[in-house]
Amino acid sequence: MPTTINDQCAIVGVGQTEFSKNSGRSELQLTLECTKAAIEDAGLPLSDVDGMVTLSIDGSDEIAVMRGFGTKELQFFSRVPHGIGGIMGMVHQAVMAITTGMCKTVLVYRAINGRTARQPQPTDAGGPLSTDHIHWSWYNPYGFSNPVSWAAMYTQRYMHEYGASSDSLAEIAMTMRKHAQNNPNAIFQQPMTKEEYDASPMVTDPLRKADVGLDLDGGCAFVITSIDRAKDLRQPPAIIRAAAQGSAGDQEGMTSFYRDNITRMTEYDLVAQQCYEMSGLKADDIDVAMLYDMYTSAVLFQLESYGFCKPGEAHEFVKGGALGVDGRLPCNTNGGQLGEGHIQGVNNLLEAVRLIRGTSVNQPKKSDHVLATSGFAVPTSAVILGKSS
Amino acid sequence: MPTTINDQCAIVGVGQTEFSKNSGRSELQLTLECTKAAIEDAGLPLSDVDGMVTLSIDGSDEIAVMRGFGTKELQFFSRVPHGIGGIMGMVHQAVMAITTGMCKTVLVYRAINGRTARQPQPTDAGGPLSTDHIHWSWYNPYGFSNPVSWAAMYTQRYMHEYGASSDSLAEIAMTMRKHAQNNPNAIFQQPMTKEEYDASPMVTDPLRKADVGLDLDGGCAFVITSIDRAKDLRQPPAIIRAAAQGSAGDQEGMTSFYRDNITRMTEYDLVAQQCYEMSGLKADDIDVAMLYDMYTSAVLFQLESYGFCKPGEAHEFVKGGALGVDGRLPCNTNGGQLGEGHIQGVNNLLEAVRLIRGTSVNQPKKSDHVLATSGFAVPTSAVILGKSS
Repeated sequence: MPTTINDQCAIVGVGQTEFSKNSGRSELQLTLECTKAAIEDAGLPLSDVDGMVTLSIDGSDEIAVMRGFGTKELQFFSRVPHGIGGIMGMVHQAVMAITTGMCKTVLVYRAINGRTARQPQPTDAGGPLSTDHIHWSWYNPYGFSNPVSWAAMYTQRYMHEYGASSDSLAEIAMTMRKHAQNNPNAIFQQPMTKEEYDASPMVTDPLRKADVGLDLDGGCAFVITSIDRAKDLRQPPAIIRAAAQGSAGDQEGMTSFYRDNITRMTEYDLVAQQCYEMSGLKADDIDVAMLYDMYTSAVLFQLESYGFCKPGEAHEFVKGGALGVDGRLPCNTNGGQLGEGHIQGVNNLLEAVRLIRGTSVNQPKKSDHVLATSGFAVPTSAVILGKSS
Repeated sequence: MPTTINDQCAIVGVGQTEFSKNSGRSELQLTLECTKAAIEDAGLPLSDVDGMVTLSIDGSDEIAVMRGFGTKELQFFSRVPHGIGGIMGMVHQAVMAITTGMCKTVLVYRAINGRTARQPQPTDAGGPLSTDHIHWSWYNPYGFSNPVSWAAMYTQRYMHEYGASSDSLAEIAMTMRKHAQNNPNAIFQQPMTKEEYDASPMVTDPLRKADVGLDLDGGCAFVITSIDRAKDLRQPPAIIRAAAQGSAGDQEGMTSFYRDNITRMTEYDLVAQQCYEMSGLKADDIDVAMLYDMYTSAVLFQLESYGFCKPGEAHEFVKGGALGVDGRLPCNTNGGQLGEGHIQGVNNLLEAVRLIRGTSVNQPKKSDHVLATSGFAVPTSAVILGKSS
């Protein structure tokens, strides 16, 4: 029985829409635009697509996408749950399906009008009372009701425990803005000074407006196939060295506050461990890290879980430009969610592919192995991409 | 690269709640009851469970189930979309994950208060306008707005095209009721005569109330692991010989009426083809068929797609007790959705395992290979189970 998925598949096509404050069109339209671009980028005939994956929260059904293209048949379709934590989990799904021969070519997509469409609220989904509704009933009535407030809770504790100051958060915010300036897709084209960071209004202490990414409209898509098929295609393949999911003890969706220690994200630990075991790589081998950065502090937690520094040391690690293009660990070279904008992290996967291809607007000297991670404080996922040997 | 999933995994534990018209408890409670029963049936320690799968429409989050049990970690979790069509797709997911080493033991579950809870309606889900909303806007305003009406459309055309009469539908309904009489779990404990069938009120011509299963409260769960681990466990393993998904051209969710021919379900054809190729079996090798039967006519379509008879011949095939315990093709020995009750077809998978174990209340002489299928007129799925060699 096979026991691994590493080095079996590759991302061979990528596509995106523009990222904007108002797309002016439906999420299905955005989906069809980015998926069409990804298929064209791969140079595959549309008829080769026989699998599709998106998030469980995505509004564009596989069968609507099929009809949009006239796709004849799908032999594989699945959804990854737990919202933004599932972004790299979509790749995990695709690789499992291809490796086991369930299908040959998978289209992975995620498109949202994240800024202009009304978003589902924890308490207003139709249907029977779900565990999700019950869960939120413990938080919402107390005004503890939005992702920034939950992220702030972990951040406050981390800073208290390790003596971290807001300087480390500022450093991350400023670095991402700097990267965004070279990126024509980025929503933030202006740099941020320390003074501007300090003057940014507090949302939930210690997180300021400048610590939080901006929800945007847009979509990204990816074509994934076997490494054998990848050889003959138009683009250099981004080999999937590892892909993993993880949900850890006392896991809640954003609010795992009943754990003994909330200065560490054990779900990130679990995903990191699997990715390194699967790929045979270690943190030192990662050349560029695409870390989910809707909140500046999320980067601190991931630097520790993914082994780039020891517990409590990330706030020192990031200082002095460590995450810059020429730093110790180039990070989010597209500007990430804080600079390019929040497309729920799927745009960080797209940048990871560009880094492997050597086409980032902020291409570091070395990018043989790129880590890309997903949502913070939820059941999560990650991938490691590599170059063709 | 591995290219198959057949004969790699087995269902080693099953559990269920009672099936009732009013469970009197939450869906999470039902989920925990049937999953606990499945784990105990398998004889595995709870800590062995490191993966979970359910439907995208299920209201009981994996992380709520984890907390319910105190499960430490999950390395795999996914959701199968397209409602009831995804039931056997949950097995497909589990087998891919185990075969590729992503996890060792998967808990598959589906529990609903299908009768007593308010069900999500196509037009009232929270969140942005999805393709699903847009789709239904073409049907709902014209009163063409419930599953029986959509199923009736295909049935009417089939009967017209092939000269089928309601006698064949009555035969299916009466057979399922007969099977249910031996089954203490079944909601229908009384037989149905032809006179009673004929007197049953018409819902949407040609489907009568007697042609439609009854939505119930309840849940079923399954423990799936590798065949190696299955060897040492408490129950005889139900080997997964094949598992497949399919969505075909011009696919809609229940309303694929723009196809050239609506007397055939091409998504069933696609799933059948994959299951037979994967297992090396053919229709003649199937000893018992657990066919999704929320509508009597769904059985006719599946008998043809899964190769038990030729196009247009199923309505003759079913006559004279062919689907009975001693018939040519014993079918839905638990009474199916029409007799045991509608638990969205997941109870048919449970009966398939019982048939392999030899513990059905209507055990046919031979049950070496059992086919179990999923939802009608939607992207769908199926499995073939077999005995350990």
